[in-house]
Amino acid sequence: MNEPPPKTLEWIGELDGYVAMVDQTLLPTELVMLEIRDVETIWEAIKVLRVRGAPAIGIAAAMGLVLGVRDDDSTTTDGLEARVGEVADYLRGCRPTASNLFWALDRMCERARATRERGPDGVKRALLEEAKLIRDEDAAMCRRIGQIGKHLIKPNSGVLTICNAGALATAEYGTALAPMYAAHEDGRPFKAYACETRPLLQGARLTTWELRRAGIDVTLLCDGMAGELMRQGRVDLVITGADRIAANGDSANKIGTYSLAVLAKAHNLPFYVAAPSTTFDLSTSSGTDIPIEYRGEDEIRCCFGRPTAPPDAPCFSPAFDVAPAMLIKGLLTERGLIEPVTPAKIREVIQAPAPCLDT
Amino acid sequence: MNEPPPKTLEWIGELDGYVAMVDQTLLPTELVMLEIRDVETIWEAIKVLRVRGAPAIGIAAAMGLVLGVRDDDSTTTDGLEARVGEVADYLRGCRPTASNLFWALDRMCERARATRERGPDGVKRALLEEAKLIRDEDAAMCRRIGQIGKHLIKPNSGVLTICNAGALATAEYGTALAPMYAAHEDGRPFKAYACETRPLLQGARLTTWELRRAGIDVTLLCDGMAGELMRQGRVDLVITGADRIAANGDSANKIGTYSLAVLAKAHNLPFYVAAPSTTFDLSTSSGTDIPIEYRGEDEIRCCFGRPTAPPDAPCFSPAFDVAPAMLIKGLLTERGLIEPVTPAKIREVIQAPAPCLDT
Repeated sequence: MNEPPPKTLEWIGELDGYVAMVDQTLLPTELVMLEIRDVETIWEAIKVLRVRGAPAIGIAAAMGLVLGVRDDDSTTTDGLEARVGEVADYLRGCRPTASNLFWALDRMCERARATRERGPDGVKRALLEEAKLIRDEDAAMCRRIGQIGKHLIKPNSGVLTICNAGALATAEYGTALAPMYAAHEDGRPFKAYACETRPLLQGARLTTWELRRAGIDVTLLCDGMAGELMRQGRVDLVITGADRIAANGDSANKIGTYSLAVLAKAHNLPFYVAAPSTTFDLSTSSGTDIPIEYRGEDEIRCCFGRPTAPPDAPCFSPAFDVAPAMLIKGLLTERGLIEPVTPAKIREVIQAPAPCLDT
Repeated sequence: MNEPPPKTLEWIGELDGYVAMVDQTLLPTELVMLEIRDVETIWEAIKVLRVRGAPAIGIAAAMGLVLGVRDDDSTTTDGLEARVGEVADYLRGCRPTASNLFWALDRMCERARATRERGPDGVKRALLEEAKLIRDEDAAMCRRIGQIGKHLIKPNSGVLTICNAGALATAEYGTALAPMYAAHEDGRPFKAYACETRPLLQGARLTTWELRRAGIDVTLLCDGMAGELMRQGRVDLVITGADRIAANGDSANKIGTYSLAVLAKAHNLPFYVAAPSTTFDLSTSSGTDIPIEYRGEDEIRCCFGRPTAPPDAPCFSPAFDVAPAMLIKGLLTERGLIEPVTPAKIREVIQAPAPCLDT
């Protein structure tokens, strides 16, 4: 093992190229790279979670926008810009919670506006540049989160995470997993614990897969076992990712995160949320204003197509929940560790001019 | 729907009869009744959870003992008693946590000793009587738990449970589910919530199935969603079963129960444990002395045979955890509600002479 983190999605070639993307629904049994050449396929890939994780969704959407406009035959910039807006709206409708989806599409639209004097072809090339830049910046942010966060992982400690905020959720390295990759690169021994993360088992399928591939000592558990794991003293800290972080620090993340935050507090364990600054949405004042996606009930009633419950049983199926700021010890970003988590400290770090990261 | 609770296991006929048992591993897709005629098949059925739930395991073991000795050709009572001891030891090795397994086998051995003057055939008939009595007493205890516990369920409240401490876990009615059946029989509206209970999904497969069959409004959720369900104010109380209750009230139950108890405390919700007095083990002083069974890692790495994680990923796989007495509002038994949960109150209720229940 000891392989580098997988490259989740990349743009291959120039404007007539394609998106190369790991189909995460097939992991851990098969590692299949998709070659995607149209925006409808990107939309479907985001919707059914072939690509998932807030940063990766943002990158996929940006690349999807390029796919959706590159064959537009408008002869005027106005025409192309209309198409850009149309495709962006289409992609925005895909998943409602991930902040990065909106952020990436807004940034792409802004780039189109800023380069309109270049004409339709120039704008298309600028959009491709921007999508690639979003990817490379994400990789750089993740590396930086790892460098800052690795100091939280003491030798021989136990680090619990949920879902997959790893290389597969980003361009590379991940957010919650980035400190683990960095500590591992430094040769520091520690134990990772991955909650399997029902219903879609991203922890079992993806986190366990990518950490083992990198040679990191990871143990899998069912979500309901996290309390017992903490009680046994095996956990020293919890690090999760986030899909959206409000101005007060409330952090939406995969369903189950809120339970972990409450359990960590009850066991006096530090609970960290790792996310790039792009995951912060300062226009959302608190977690109660974050829209929560509810998913299809069959995700709970079936496991890979096999019924695990009566087919007509009603299900409670939120895709996310919100860890309130008061339960979060620190927010780990590429701009530094925000600790304690206060609205003022968040504004100070997130609204500061962006540092120059080596992409 | 509105069918009565299913009869999980019964002895059909006389000494040359058989055990009729629901194969719970096939639910909810198929309702198959097994006809079991030898002790090895009972042992296997307990081991692989065709029958599960502490009271049902006790009943199955008692009936298994009858199957294991009925064809013994000893001409002396000493010879038969030796066989009884041998079969009881064999069955005791099956699952280490369930108190009722040991309790039922001890009771059967005691009955063999007490009737030794009847000769081998007389002892065999006495053992069958005893096994049937254990079953009928269990059904009566469950009905009584329901009658006492139904008052905890206020109209339109939400009741959360985990695993299956229902009719399928007992002779009839169940323990944690008995108050729900009784409240439903009284026509009181309420909402039941069932944690799916990974890894073996007893909540999804069994609790949802049996409550829906009875016409009770039940919603299924993944275990990691329980905190969010509580935060949304949908839960008014939690009722779980128990596999063994120590003298101080610490209660071993399906893995995930401890997390629910911590979450209930954090949300200021009452947490009840329902179990017949036979589940109490006053010789075990506290939860730290309860042996916890760890199960095979493939129960976590696979879902019905399909891999959900890398096949060689290490797993944390306790089958049970312990809700400490300090997190339990009350212990609901056929002898009354033990509240507050103190060693003195437990001794007072559990060591009192057994009330006469109408079997």
